[in-house]
Amino acid sequence: MAGNVTDKSSESDIVISSRVRLARNLKDFPFPFRMDREQGIGVLNRVKDSLMNNKSALSKDLLFVDIRSLTAIDRQAMVERHLISPNLAESRADCAAIVSRDNRISIMINEEDHLRIQCIYPGMQMDKAWECCNEIDRMLEEKVEFAFEPRRGYLTCCPTNVGTGIRASVMLHLPALAMTGYIGNVLDACSKLGVAVRGLYGEHSEALGNMFQVSNQVTLGQAEEEIIKHINNITSQIIEQERVLRNELYKQNSFRFEDRVFRSYGILSNARIISTEESLRLLSDVRLGVDMGIIKQTGKEMLNELMLLIQPAILQKTVGRPLSSEERDIHRADLLRGKLRPA
Amino acid sequence: MAGNVTDKSSESDIVISSRVRLARNLKDFPFPFRMDREQGIGVLNRVKDSLMNNKSALSKDLLFVDIRSLTAIDRQAMVERHLISPNLAESRADCAAIVSRDNRISIMINEEDHLRIQCIYPGMQMDKAWECCNEIDRMLEEKVEFAFEPRRGYLTCCPTNVGTGIRASVMLHLPALAMTGYIGNVLDACSKLGVAVRGLYGEHSEALGNMFQVSNQVTLGQAEEEIIKHINNITSQIIEQERVLRNELYKQNSFRFEDRVFRSYGILSNARIISTEESLRLLSDVRLGVDMGIIKQTGKEMLNELMLLIQPAILQKTVGRPLSSEERDIHRADLLRGKLRPA
Repeated sequence: MAGNVTDKSSESDIVISSRVRLARNLKDFPFPFRMDREQGIGVLNRVKDSLMNNKSALSKDLLFVDIRSLTAIDRQAMVERHLISPNLAESRADCAAIVSRDNRISIMINEEDHLRIQCIYPGMQMDKAWECCNEIDRMLEEKVEFAFEPRRGYLTCCPTNVGTGIRASVMLHLPALAMTGYIGNVLDACSKLGVAVRGLYGEHSEALGNMFQVSNQVTLGQAEEEIIKHINNITSQIIEQERVLRNELYKQNSFRFEDRVFRSYGILSNARIISTEESLRLLSDVRLGVDMGIIKQTGKEMLNELMLLIQPAILQKTVGRPLSSEERDIHRADLLRGKLRPA
Repeated sequence: MAGNVTDKSSESDIVISSRVRLARNLKDFPFPFRMDREQGIGVLNRVKDSLMNNKSALSKDLLFVDIRSLTAIDRQAMVERHLISPNLAESRADCAAIVSRDNRISIMINEEDHLRIQCIYPGMQMDKAWECCNEIDRMLEEKVEFAFEPRRGYLTCCPTNVGTGIRASVMLHLPALAMTGYIGNVLDACSKLGVAVRGLYGEHSEALGNMFQVSNQVTLGQAEEEIIKHINNITSQIIEQERVLRNELYKQNSFRFEDRVFRSYGILSNARIISTEESLRLLSDVRLGVDMGIIKQTGKEMLNELMLLIQPAILQKTVGRPLSSEERDIHRADLLRGKLRPA
């Protein structure tokens, strides 16, 4: 999900967002887990200087975020917007992030590696995300030297990232595959093709709201373009299967299909107390209804916005104060009602 | 429920309708189960003549319904409107009903007894229902002689009706007593006081939509007025308990209370397929929400109308053709959406 970026790109009925991230480390410093405080600050300053003190248009668009200075809610909100990892949110003083105003770019400093460069684009736009990462990579290379060996490629803290250091992933909404159970077959096929499928919040997370993250497992021995092409190809096949199944389900019993998506819309736009999990589950149905042209009371852009706004920390930022779990469920319901009711 | 009669009377947040019915038999004929065809037609003609060929205003308001000439759907629709019993709907050629245009009065001929005179009024208006029955009873007595013995009172086919032949009943909506389980205590107390509690369609029927019929068990040894007073007293106590519980439930957690009634409203006003049972269950929640002043998108009169219109046979009459079970569920959902959406 790409925050407040609007979503008008292709395949947006199924592809929520495309993401590329690069793992990089500076040659002159040990890996973060072996750094002392001074070294950590050294990395931080070098990266900050390289990216923010230059005359590019991109540079002006970037904001430096001192993670330690944020409240717990602000940090959590950044996790919910997929700008930083839960690890970075909880970590030490020399951690930071540099993000673009539109939230498309996020660079984590001193997480597992010195640098995690991430670009997210709405819909099926992996090539653009890759181009964007590449541009930041080049900007950095003008000022710093990366840990790199000709035979092994970029060196990273965890061996699974050595080589290109790239992870290309797409966030897919796959309600029909999930409903019918065929998602199991997709997962099997993906794992045989060296592709991982995870939930909404990456590793070990559940596929809340029928959202699945598809990404490459291998980073070594293939060029970046090949990896991206591979993910694009597999994604196209999953999209095709999901579309066929959606149409089959609709043809089998259009009334039952419409009943499901409209009941979910009815609950979401009337509930007074609702959890994040239930909201995501119902939003999945509503999104399916919108994608199939059945529900016209709302649109994809509003649903993308709501998927972010209902998250616990973003919700508390919107309301402007810390809320108990029950208060969040009440404010979440208020928000959903306000945004989903037809004008 | 009093059909298309509007409901502006007192206690209408809990009392749906008040009903009085009198069992009567003509002295000159054997009980229906022992009559031959000719005798049956004799009873029918005597009653028809007594009620319809006189100059009273009431007489002009009555319609004679030859049950056998109706389609199965028309007969079932009369059952759903509580105008005739399921037994009468399925019975023999000499059965008939005389009903008033507003459906408040219904006189079954040759059901278990020669005559079952019924008057229904909306809300808590037992006295009016009794007065109305009494007027019809007097009209008949001017022309026919009832089977009556000074010591035993009116003779009826089933000994449980001997004496006054009266059954006074109220239809109560008791969601708070049902939700909390306290309805069990009410049922126990009622049975000790000689009062029966039944479901929406009388004996052996379930309490669909949290509707409970409270009526006297004893017809012998008490004057009609005493019986009616007894039912009125017990009803007042049940009403009081239901009101206290509703307010307690709301005070305990107003958000959860509102959540429940609004979710039900959201489903009812958005579903595309819905059964009678589910509709009645959700309508009970919505009615509770309206009674408590929480739901303002609809009103009690509309809910009373819907409780009738969603019934299978009435629904088919509205649509104008026989429908399969699945078609009914689809048309029922259409109807609910159309009637419940705020203008």
